[in-house]
Amino acid sequence: MNGKNLEIEIKSKIASVEGMARKITGAGAVFDCDLVHEDFYYEKPAKLGSFARTDEALRLRISRNETEGKEELFLTYKGPKVDATTKTREEIDVGVADAGKVRRILAAIGFKEVIVIKKIRKHYHHGDVSIMLDRVEGLPDPYMEVEILADDPAALDAKREQLFRYLEGVGIGRGASERKSYLELVLLARAGTPARP
Amino acid sequence: MNGKNLEIEIKSKIASVEGMARKITGAGAVFDCDLVHEDFYYEKPAKLGSFARTDEALRLRISRNETEGKEELFLTYKGPKVDATTKTREEIDVGVADAGKVRRILAAIGFKEVIVIKKIRKHYHHGDVSIMLDRVEGLPDPYMEVEILADDPAALDAKREQLFRYLEGVGIGRGASERKSYLELVLLARAGTPARP
Repeated sequence: MNGKNLEIEIKSKIASVEGMARKITGAGAVFDCDLVHEDFYYEKPAKLGSFARTDEALRLRISRNETEGKEELFLTYKGPKVDATTKTREEIDVGVADAGKVRRILAAIGFKEVIVIKKIRKHYHHGDVSIMLDRVEGLPDPYMEVEILADDPAALDAKREQLFRYLEGVGIGRGASERKSYLELVLLARAGTPARP
Repeated sequence: MNGKNLEIEIKSKIASVEGMARKITGAGAVFDCDLVHEDFYYEKPAKLGSFARTDEALRLRISRNETEGKEELFLTYKGPKVDATTKTREEIDVGVADAGKVRRILAAIGFKEVIVIKKIRKHYHHGDVSIMLDRVEGLPDPYMEVEILADDPAALDAKREQLFRYLEGVGIGRGASERKSYLELVLLARAGTPARP
């Protein structure tokens, strides 16, 4: 019954997608696909407080795999971050059949769409590490996200260490970790506040 | 953009599933399949009031088609009933990939499972009328539901009339219409209050 998936994830700003793509494939990463993600973020009914304040998120993702020409839809809940240096958090992700209907159901039960974020991602893997090179509409710089899923919380420290070492191997230091979500970064950029690393 | 499906539905208590099955197939209805529905009903967070009071419902359905040996999952929102004599209401129904994950997401965003209702249904159709002969766990009598979907509210009266005439054709008068949902009927039965027709 304990099927909690922890998403251990580290995000870092990078200079260029093309440069980093050469570096990681040179080191052994394998290209998986080009993805376009359209992410609809929701806020809970005001009487219940705010996902932003509790560091949770509810998201409907339209994921277009440009390489395979197919589209998938996911409804995702993200719990609060559980650690001070990474973006590790509980993630519950379920496939859904129709984006329009999910949006109407969420509206009917009181959840409001607050923002749509569009991401152009190049997806790679290196062993059990997923690597995404991302351009996000509304953000000036590209980012890299590395991720491992773990179902055993005891493995968290070791997995996080593995990710940091992977990043160091491609020239990204521990201090470069960006814990803000793309949602937060885009909201900050729109508000005209420079996002600090 | 106006994709609202109205579910025009009339439910009536019947004496026996076998007897009514003979009567409707004799009149031309065609058997579709045997279904087992396991329906998880949700209540909203207390601060938002109650679906029961606003005559709404949020339901996760596990639908097992015993005839074809396949299982489908649906998340459904039902709006308040819009008419005084039938169970007509807005219905938004979306396929989902994993019941356990939907249950966990709904719990995480504050929705509580209040009851599970199990229904054994025989599904028929007669032209554009869907007919279900239902045995519901916890209810002593079987029921028959007839249903038409309409996307044009202007057609509502004509469609409802068509359903009432269909029912009269198989011996069920207009007065026998039961507007309570199975959810309400089961809750009443559990509370020991006899459900009145």
